[in-house]
Amino acid sequence: MALTEKPVTTFLDELASNAPAPGGGSVAAISGALGAALVSMVCNLTLGKKGYEAVQGDIEALVARSEALRAELQGLLEEDVKAYTAYSQTAKMPKDTDEQKAARTEAMQAALKNATMVPMHIAEAAVKVMDLCMPAAEKGNKWAVSDAGVAVLMAEAALRAAALNVLINLGTIKDQAFVEEKRAYLDGLLAGKGVMRDEIYDYVVSKL
Amino acid sequence: MALTEKPVTTFLDELASNAPAPGGGSVAAISGALGAALVSMVCNLTLGKKGYEAVQGDIEALVARSEALRAELQGLLEEDVKAYTAYSQTAKMPKDTDEQKAARTEAMQAALKNATMVPMHIAEAAVKVMDLCMPAAEKGNKWAVSDAGVAVLMAEAALRAAALNVLINLGTIKDQAFVEEKRAYLDGLLAGKGVMRDEIYDYVVSKL
Repeated sequence: MALTEKPVTTFLDELASNAPAPGGGSVAAISGALGAALVSMVCNLTLGKKGYEAVQGDIEALVARSEALRAELQGLLEEDVKAYTAYSQTAKMPKDTDEQKAARTEAMQAALKNATMVPMHIAEAAVKVMDLCMPAAEKGNKWAVSDAGVAVLMAEAALRAAALNVLINLGTIKDQAFVEEKRAYLDGLLAGKGVMRDEIYDYVVSKL
Repeated sequence: MALTEKPVTTFLDELASNAPAPGGGSVAAISGALGAALVSMVCNLTLGKKGYEAVQGDIEALVARSEALRAELQGLLEEDVKAYTAYSQTAKMPKDTDEQKAARTEAMQAALKNATMVPMHIAEAAVKVMDLCMPAAEKGNKWAVSDAGVAVLMAEAALRAAALNVLINLGTIKDQAFVEEKRAYLDGLLAGKGVMRDEIYDYVVSKL
C-alpha cells in the first residue's frame, strides 16, 4: 500500500517505529504537501467570494500551481521510500570476491546518488511552494491569512528537512565532483529562505 | 470518522478544499506530532543497539516523553476541529431580539476563548517536543541524527503555526484582560525558540 493511502495515525506509528522508512525524507515531503494544501485552501476560500472580484484570475493561477506542487510532493514522498529501499537492496549484494565487492560498491554509490536527488527535488518543490505564500497572504481571503502563514512555515521546514537528507547522503558519496556540485546547488536553494519565512510570518502577524 | 483515521491523501484533500476545517490549527498539531514521532524513531533506532549501552536509560525516558506528546498532539488535532465546529454553531444562533443577540454574542465569545486555548495547548506541546530534540541528536543513533534535525524543524513550525492560530482568535475576543494575559503567555512560549531551532539544526549539520 502506498504510504499516502494509509491513515494518518498509521503513518505516524510507522514513522515512530524503528523501521528505516518512512523517515525524515518522507516528513520533508509531507510538510511541503501540507504547505501546498494550505495555499490551495486559502485560494479555494477566495474563489467566487464577494470583495475579491479583482483577484480571481491571480487566485486561479495560484491554486493551479499549489495543486500541481502538492501532487508532486505526494509523489516524492513515495519516491523517497522507494529510493531508500533500492539502496538497502544494493547493500545486501554479495561481497565474497573482489569483482562482487566492486559491483556492490558501484551499485551502492549509484543508489545513493538517486537517494540524494529525491530530497533535492523535495527542496526544489518546497521553494516553489514558498513563492506562493506571500501572494496567497496578500490577495487571498483575509479570514484565511493565518493559513497562508502556516503554509510558509511548513514549506520552509520542508526545505530545511530536505536539505538535511541531501547532506546526510552526500556524506557517503565518493564522487567529489557530484558532491561539490550538489552542495553548491543546495546552498543556492537555501539562500535567503529563512529571511523570506520571517518576512511572510511578520506580514501575516501584522494582519491578525 | 476522526481526522487522524483518514488516509494521508484524504486529509490533504480536505485541507486543500474550501471546507473551514481542517485548517492551520490542525496542521500545527500534525506538524508537532510528526516531530514527536521522529524523536521516537531516533530513540527506537538506538534502543538495544551496540555502542549505545551507556545511554539506554536516557533514551527510554526520551521515547516515553515523545510518545506521550505524540498522543497528546494527535488528540489536539481532533480537538481543534471540534472547537472550530462548536464556534460555527454559536454563530448560527438566532439574533432577532436584543436578548438573543446578547446570548449569541456571549456564546460566541466563550467558544472563541475555547478555540484559542486549543492552539495554545498545541504550542505548549510543541515546545516540549523541541526540548527533546537536542538530547535525541546528541545521544541517539548517529545514523539517525538528521531525523532529530527534522524533528526540531517540525516542532518549531508547529509552535509558530499554533501561535498564528492563537493570535487570529485573540483578535476577535472582547475580554481584554484575557487577551493580554494569553498574548504575554504566548510570547513567553515563543521566546528564543527560533535561536534554539537554528542551534540544533547547525549541530545536526556539523555531524553530517
